[in-house]
Amino acid sequence: MLNHAYAVILAGGRGERFWPLSTARQPKQLLSLVGKRTLIAAAVNHLKGLIPANRIFIITHADLVLPARRALPGFPHRNIIGEPFGRDTAAAITLGAAIIKARDPRAIFCVLTADHIIGDVAIFRRTLIKAFRTVTTSNCLLTIGIQPTFPSTAFGYIEVGPRLSRPGSVEIVNVRRFVEKPNRAKAARYLKTGRFFWNSGMFVWSLDAFEDALARFQPPLKKLMNRVVPVVNTPRFASVLRAEYPRLKKISVDYAIMEKADNIVMARGTFAWDDVGSWSALENHFDKDDQHNVIIGRAVSLDASGNIVVSREGLVALIGVDNLVVVRTDHATLVCPKHRAQDVKRIVELLKRKRHHDTL
Amino acid sequence: MLNHAYAVILAGGRGERFWPLSTARQPKQLLSLVGKRTLIAAAVNHLKGLIPANRIFIITHADLVLPARRALPGFPHRNIIGEPFGRDTAAAITLGAAIIKARDPRAIFCVLTADHIIGDVAIFRRTLIKAFRTVTTSNCLLTIGIQPTFPSTAFGYIEVGPRLSRPGSVEIVNVRRFVEKPNRAKAARYLKTGRFFWNSGMFVWSLDAFEDALARFQPPLKKLMNRVVPVVNTPRFASVLRAEYPRLKKISVDYAIMEKADNIVMARGTFAWDDVGSWSALENHFDKDDQHNVIIGRAVSLDASGNIVVSREGLVALIGVDNLVVVRTDHATLVCPKHRAQDVKRIVELLKRKRHHDTL
Repeated sequence: MLNHAYAVILAGGRGERFWPLSTARQPKQLLSLVGKRTLIAAAVNHLKGLIPANRIFIITHADLVLPARRALPGFPHRNIIGEPFGRDTAAAITLGAAIIKARDPRAIFCVLTADHIIGDVAIFRRTLIKAFRTVTTSNCLLTIGIQPTFPSTAFGYIEVGPRLSRPGSVEIVNVRRFVEKPNRAKAARYLKTGRFFWNSGMFVWSLDAFEDALARFQPPLKKLMNRVVPVVNTPRFASVLRAEYPRLKKISVDYAIMEKADNIVMARGTFAWDDVGSWSALENHFDKDDQHNVIIGRAVSLDASGNIVVSREGLVALIGVDNLVVVRTDHATLVCPKHRAQDVKRIVELLKRKRHHDTL
Repeated sequence: MLNHAYAVILAGGRGERFWPLSTARQPKQLLSLVGKRTLIAAAVNHLKGLIPANRIFIITHADLVLPARRALPGFPHRNIIGEPFGRDTAAAITLGAAIIKARDPRAIFCVLTADHIIGDVAIFRRTLIKAFRTVTTSNCLLTIGIQPTFPSTAFGYIEVGPRLSRPGSVEIVNVRRFVEKPNRAKAARYLKTGRFFWNSGMFVWSLDAFEDALARFQPPLKKLMNRVVPVVNTPRFASVLRAEYPRLKKISVDYAIMEKADNIVMARGTFAWDDVGSWSALENHFDKDDQHNVIIGRAVSLDASGNIVVSREGLVALIGVDNLVVVRTDHATLVCPKHRAQDVKRIVELLKRKRHHDTL
C-alpha cells in the first residue's frame, strides 16, 4: 500500500450516448459494457492492494448514490458522495480533495474515471505507483497520458517535451501543451511525431500542489474547499454543498487548471485505455463474426455486415443492413448508423423534450 | 340475405412475412395490422346481413382453431374447422364445400380470404351479390378480379375478354387466361390495355359447378369430398381428415381448377383491395409524417426518412436511417430495408433452424 495515497473516482457521467442501455438511473459507469463487472466496479477493483477502499472516494450525482452503492457491494457507503448538481470535473475533484484533506492534510491522490476501460491493469498500477512517487518528491501536477495506438479524433492530446525521469518502465515527461480533439489529418501528424499522447483525464497530485493551483487559477473553488473541509463527516455537509454548488461555474479541470499551470508533468501510460465514448467504440472490445458484425446478446442476421448489435432482452433480427448500431433493451430499440453514434445524446434530448420520461 | 348462400373463409396462412408481430400462434389473419379489428374479424364482418354467421365456415390449421375462436367472439365455434395439415387452397376449399354440401346440396358459396384488406365494403358487397346471382343462373366458375390501380408485381393477373352482363355497377366478363406475377414492365403494359385485373383469390361458385370441376380436373379432391360429406357433424369427422389429408398433394385452387376450366367468368371488383403481402405494403394504408415515415406505435426519429416503424411495446428510436422497416414486439426487433421485406420469411426459417422457437 502507498502511504498517504487516496483516490477520487469521478462517476458523475450521465452516459447519454449509451441510451437506451444507459438511463438516468443507470448511466454508463453502472453498466457492464465489456466483461462482467460494471465499469465502476472495475475502476475500484483496479486499485485493490494499492489503495484501501476506505481511502477511495467516489463522487457522483446525488441521484446516483444508491445505484452506485448497489453496484459496489462491500464498498464503504459513506465513501460514495453525491453532488447536489453536476458542475463538471473541477468542482467534483475539489469536493473529493476537501474530503481527503479533512482526513489527511498530507495526502497525495489520484483522480480516476468510473466509466473508462483499462486493459493491462498491471501496467496501469505500475504507472500509478510511479506517479504517486513523482508527486511525493516534486511539486508538480501530474497527468497520465496514453500512448496512442491509432490517430483518434475522439480524444484530446497532450504534447510532451523532454524526458524528466531516468529511462524505465514508466517514464515521466515534461508537458508542452494540451490540444483539443484534432481532425483526422492532424491526428495522423500527431501520431507520427511520437510526441503526442491521449489525454485520459487521469491525474495524480499532492493536496498541496492542487490547493496551490486552485488558489492561483480558481479562487471560487478554493473557497469551496475551505468551506467544505470543516464540515466533512458532520450533519452540515449536505447543506453546505447545497448552498455552495449553485454558485459554481461548470468547468472541467483541464480548462480550470491543467491548461493554465506551468508545473505539469505526464506519466507515460503504455496500458490499453478507452473512454468508450459511444456505441461505435464497442467494436474495439469484442470479436466479430464472419460478416464483421459485433453481436452482444441474442441476434440473427441475413446479408448484414459491419453492424454492432446489443440485445439485452429478446432477439434482434437484421436483414440486408450494414454498419448500423442496433440496441434493444426492455424499454426501447435504437437503430442508428455507426458513424452517427455520437448523436444518440440528441435522441435523449428529443425524448426529454417529447416527455418520454419512462424511456430515459 | 341471399338464399342458399354460404361462405368459406380461408384462414390457413402462417403470415411469416409479418414476423415478429405474426407468430405461429398469431399469424397475420389474427392481427389488427390496419384498423382496430383483426383481419379475420373484418373478413367475417364484411358479410354481415348478407350471409348469416352459421353459414360462414372458416378453414384454418388445427393449431389455430382456438386462437381464431378467441378472435371471433360470438361466432359459432363449430364453424371454425381445423385441417390436420396445410394442403394449400384447393384442399381447404374442398373441405369447406363438403361441410356446406352436408347442410345444403343446392348451395352457392363464396371463397374469401381471412388476411386481405378490403376498402369500400359497400362495393365489395354489391360485387358479391351480383356474383352469387350470376352463378345461380349460369353454370360457370366465377372469380372476383380487382381493377388494378398501379402496375403491381406482387399479384397475379386475369386477362378478360368480352363483357357478358349488361353494363352496370358490377360487370361480369369472360376470362381469357390467368397470368403469373409479372415484372414491372409487363405489369405496366397490362395496365395500359385495360384488359388485366388482379387475381384476388376470391371466388363464387355453385356446389354443382365446383364438384363438376373437381371430378374433371382433381379426382383425388372429389374423393376427399365424397369421404367427408357423410361424416360432417359426426365423431368420425376428425379421423377421416387425418386419414385423407396425408394423401393429398399441396395445390392451389388456381392451378387445380381455375387455370384448367373453360367456364370461368370474372366479376369486376372496383373496391379497394390489398393482400398486404409484407411489411412494406403497410405504407399504402397509413398516413406518413413530414419525413415520409409511417409510424405505428411509439417512436422518435432524427434525420430519418421513408421508414416504416411498428412498435407494439416500448419505443423505437431512429437516427439517420432511410427506407427501413423496423418492428419491435415484446419478444424481438426486426431491422430490414423496405425492399427486402419479402425476405422476412427467410429470417423465420433461420430462426427455426437455429432453434429460437420462443421467438416464432
